[in-house]
Amino acid sequence: MNINELTTPALVVDVDAFEANLADMAAALPGDRLRPHVKAHKTTELAKRQLAAGHRGFTCATIREVEGMVAAGLGEDLLLANEVADARRIGPLLDAGARVTLAIDSDATLAAAVAGGVREVVVDVNVGLPRCGIAPDRAGALADAARAAGLVVRGVMGYEGHLMMLEDVAERAKLTEECMAKLLAAHADVGGELVTGGGTGTYAVNTWVTEIQAGSYALMDTAYTKAGLPFRQSLTVLATVISVTAPSGEMPGWAVADLGLKALGMDHGNPTVLGGQVWFCSDEHTVFAPDAPVAVGDRVHVVPAHIDPTVALHERMHLVSGSAAVEGEVIETWPVDLRGW
Amino acid sequence: MNINELTTPALVVDVDAFEANLADMAAALPGDRLRPHVKAHKTTELAKRQLAAGHRGFTCATIREVEGMVAAGLGEDLLLANEVADARRIGPLLDAGARVTLAIDSDATLAAAVAGGVREVVVDVNVGLPRCGIAPDRAGALADAARAAGLVVRGVMGYEGHLMMLEDVAERAKLTEECMAKLLAAHADVGGELVTGGGTGTYAVNTWVTEIQAGSYALMDTAYTKAGLPFRQSLTVLATVISVTAPSGEMPGWAVADLGLKALGMDHGNPTVLGGQVWFCSDEHTVFAPDAPVAVGDRVHVVPAHIDPTVALHERMHLVSGSAAVEGEVIETWPVDLRGW
Repeated sequence: MNINELTTPALVVDVDAFEANLADMAAALPGDRLRPHVKAHKTTELAKRQLAAGHRGFTCATIREVEGMVAAGLGEDLLLANEVADARRIGPLLDAGARVTLAIDSDATLAAAVAGGVREVVVDVNVGLPRCGIAPDRAGALADAARAAGLVVRGVMGYEGHLMMLEDVAERAKLTEECMAKLLAAHADVGGELVTGGGTGTYAVNTWVTEIQAGSYALMDTAYTKAGLPFRQSLTVLATVISVTAPSGEMPGWAVADLGLKALGMDHGNPTVLGGQVWFCSDEHTVFAPDAPVAVGDRVHVVPAHIDPTVALHERMHLVSGSAAVEGEVIETWPVDLRGW
Repeated sequence: MNINELTTPALVVDVDAFEANLADMAAALPGDRLRPHVKAHKTTELAKRQLAAGHRGFTCATIREVEGMVAAGLGEDLLLANEVADARRIGPLLDAGARVTLAIDSDATLAAAVAGGVREVVVDVNVGLPRCGIAPDRAGALADAARAAGLVVRGVMGYEGHLMMLEDVAERAKLTEECMAKLLAAHADVGGELVTGGGTGTYAVNTWVTEIQAGSYALMDTAYTKAGLPFRQSLTVLATVISVTAPSGEMPGWAVADLGLKALGMDHGNPTVLGGQVWFCSDEHTVFAPDAPVAVGDRVHVVPAHIDPTVALHERMHLVSGSAAVEGEVIETWPVDLRGW
């Protein structure tokens, strides 16, 4: 099928860019040096490509993602890199043969892990981002409590998320080192084989962790591109022009594409229409000034400002050849099957 | 079931506020004076409540919404208030007995209507918002062309969307009158029984249309509340506290709730945590400073900054009694079944 036959809006993935991203990352961080984060794509078929590139372990942000990965046969070594107040959906996955390691950062989340039948944990350490994570000097005591409760403590986790988008690479490297010094200090107290952290923004400069939790590198994000990362933006949202207004007097002309707030993650701002300047988005519309005349029925590619929440709005993504040319063939269609909670 | 047993994040609708909104709107705009817009909630069970309140016709933004409404038995008089470049999914709905009226604003969208087997249209007129819609002085010619092509032209549509959030009511009323003068001029040329437009922001001041297309009034939005509208915010996202960090030195304490960019429409900015001040949101987290101490496992209600795209991220919504008290009972659970395209 040609992509012009797709119902729009539709997620399309440029297969060449996508495969280059996977190959480049696997070369930089082979095998277990990378634990791909599935929150960035929420698609088990995409995760299977990451497995084929050599990465056996995966990172998840929600229990739903863990369940879906197990159901897809990708449960060899899953890290739920997040705290949960109720872990009771994890126990049955372990009983079914999956390996799931859960992050804890408090006595309460330790208790939830125990109550949920969890067997293995990492201690989540606050390395500077004010979000989850225990203070580094308290990590050892939490690990002791976890072991006393019968759990295996596999190591420590620390996410330097506040540094991911820093455009100055030297500054990003220096601050990452400071964050990781905190994580390594905690690791000295906690023990275990895992020091897990990092992301697409720091995959090259975070040389202290045993594994990097990058996810965005596969489809990529505009902000990461601005930060100088070498991966290519492989995902666009294909849309159709549904209305065109010609210039009139001092008012320039504009066009309307059939995608809007329900097809685009908007927390990083407006998307980019390839071949136009975006004026604004509403629920099911993006209004833009086209660089060259367009007509009703024309297809346009739109680059979302933030991929992760964009993907969460779509039921499927289409792997295509030559998508940027608007003449691609759909090679495969993958359900975005890890959405919801 | 008590709402504390819900998996979070979860959409919860305060039944008292919701029913008051429906009753208040039905009193202001009874029966066919209101054509509720389903894009605001994407939920056929909610639309059935609007039907029970006396409104037989509905407004849709996408073909998927039209299809879902027909499948739910709500296809008595549907207006697809949007242009489409491909209308071929509409013909079969008409053959199955539904009534669907399509907006057109160009020769190209007229041709798409004809090719799709559409029988009835309205002429979409640009009344000031630079989005879809034909210039008022060209509406009559498009109506003539539609009738020449064998279509029934039911009237005109004009959406003064740029006025919805104006906080000065007198200014909103004055500018609405100017927009509607354009629409009525077009209607004089087009004819037909429908003059359709308006929204929650102008439902009380737009006295020129034959029907108002309001949707947000049922669940309501923070921005509409600021604009002084009388409806109550009936929808919140229920979330669970998963991490708490105590104050340390000069750093205040904070907490993390398990909802983020994938559970919240973010185009209007950060959500509001009831009982706290939001610092930032990430994919699956909202970090906030609680007004009073909270603990892991506590539930919090979060008001999204924009309801429409928030609803599109969730599989279901729960109708509850006394939701604000975090002690409500789930009365019914409705699938958000009009998502996607």
